[in-house]
Amino acid sequence: MLPFSRVAIIGLGLIGSSIARAVRAEMPTVRLTGHDASAEAREQVRALGLVDDCTDHAGAAVIDADLVILCVPVGAIGAVAAEIADDLPAGVIVSDVGSSKAGVATAFAEALPGVTVVPAHPVAGTERSGPDAGFATLFKGRWCILTPAADADPMAVERVGEFWRRLGAEIDTMDAQHHDLVLAVTSHLPHLIAYTIVGTASDLEAVTQSEVIKYSAGGFRDFTRIAASDPTMWRDVFLANKDAVLAMLQRFSEDLSALQRAIRWDKGDELFDLFTRTRAIRRSIVEQGQDDAREDFGRSHG
Amino acid sequence: MLPFSRVAIIGLGLIGSSIARAVRAEMPTVRLTGHDASAEAREQVRALGLVDDCTDHAGAAVIDADLVILCVPVGAIGAVAAEIADDLPAGVIVSDVGSSKAGVATAFAEALPGVTVVPAHPVAGTERSGPDAGFATLFKGRWCILTPAADADPMAVERVGEFWRRLGAEIDTMDAQHHDLVLAVTSHLPHLIAYTIVGTASDLEAVTQSEVIKYSAGGFRDFTRIAASDPTMWRDVFLANKDAVLAMLQRFSEDLSALQRAIRWDKGDELFDLFTRTRAIRRSIVEQGQDDAREDFGRSHG
Repeated sequence: MLPFSRVAIIGLGLIGSSIARAVRAEMPTVRLTGHDASAEAREQVRALGLVDDCTDHAGAAVIDADLVILCVPVGAIGAVAAEIADDLPAGVIVSDVGSSKAGVATAFAEALPGVTVVPAHPVAGTERSGPDAGFATLFKGRWCILTPAADADPMAVERVGEFWRRLGAEIDTMDAQHHDLVLAVTSHLPHLIAYTIVGTASDLEAVTQSEVIKYSAGGFRDFTRIAASDPTMWRDVFLANKDAVLAMLQRFSEDLSALQRAIRWDKGDELFDLFTRTRAIRRSIVEQGQDDAREDFGRSHG
Repeated sequence: MLPFSRVAIIGLGLIGSSIARAVRAEMPTVRLTGHDASAEAREQVRALGLVDDCTDHAGAAVIDADLVILCVPVGAIGAVAAEIADDLPAGVIVSDVGSSKAGVATAFAEALPGVTVVPAHPVAGTERSGPDAGFATLFKGRWCILTPAADADPMAVERVGEFWRRLGAEIDTMDAQHHDLVLAVTSHLPHLIAYTIVGTASDLEAVTQSEVIKYSAGGFRDFTRIAASDPTMWRDVFLANKDAVLAMLQRFSEDLSALQRAIRWDKGDELFDLFTRTRAIRRSIVEQGQDDAREDFGRSHG
């Protein structure tokens, strides 16, 4: 038994189009409808045949769905939910894929009172954007975190969980506040740091941009990948998860100051101890299948 | 004509053993000698057959060489240079592969007065360490920066440059001070930031280490690769290049504070502008062959 038979995807960028492809691959009998606010993206979606019906208006995509997934920047969730509210059929479950969840819960509650909502966050992605950036296996072996409200219908939560399991994801459930704290450190802070350092490097006077690019193999290039992520999505994430991001940033800045002091005062042992500790974390991430073991990210050499 | 015919490599870790392998592949008639301070590493080097003669003492390796390359942490350059000083033959050229160069120049000048020295820094590496971590193609398409003193013998500089070109590297020459500034931003600061954030994440009370590892695919895992780099090497780099690292860290902290403020005061446009600018840098790095174009570092999905 499939958890859903008529799925509507609103927003067909990297994540939305990957869901469409994965549904096609794993649940081919599901009827897929979709909409994207960009006319250009809709053209691509039609050309790629990603959904059965790509509609010009969001409402038309959801009118017959039993699952609606909003795959839009978190800052747009409220507006898009309000846009489709009148067209949602009875019994539908609405979900999303946003990277911060407390704000999303509030936006849903305001825009869709009485509608069954099960927010979700598949922790997966690449630096690319748009309908042609997605692929069917994006969620395989990755975690999808559900953040249902305390009084959510357990059956609805189970169905959304089963949907994601079919796409290859493993499911975790936690409350929205804890999600936002966890993701602030595992995702939001790394992106913020990467954006900052790439910005810093491009603003120097004593070192030219061409030098920064030429010698990026010394470590810098690793940061540029995530600093190439979608600007709209990330602007929204930082504003939506402001409190947790600022709290994590404070911790990071304290730790950075401590390291700065250790360098200034030649405290080599402190540096060595930290640098030894951080190796173990890498090992665990590789062991648990959340990153490739291939050294140097499997980059080709020559 | 080969630039050198008898090469001695002191320190056979990731870089030293990669040089040995690359020399075997590209200049098979060169006689290779080597030494590593670790008896365990020497056993590995012998078992792998990386050099023709792996000696128990550094001096024995250099006695007949026309090029000696010290591939040891920059903090050890002075001591190792002093150790081999009496065994260096006339006409030899001494080089190194250290990631900071002003301190190295001083150490060489003190330990080896009158000896021809051409310091070098191949900007290449992986997070792995030890004789078994190296590979022959590590330097292909990467930059090798030479930092000869202003009064260096141009012929000696040219021969060391030719040696690295044979291993597949492109050559740049600059003074040691500028090198240290450039590498502070393209390599040292990224490593320092990566070490810090991985440390911060492992020290939180509200988020468990197991959560950090599980959800690392949100961005965090990219930082853990370079935070798994050799602790001794990096401790030495930060202490040796203290001034430039602290200066870059200051710039980074200012920029991070500005971003922090933009988040706190909901200045979405400032965030969006920076996040758009940083995408262009990634594009240039990929275009210039300093990183793979494969999205998501070519990670396998499923």
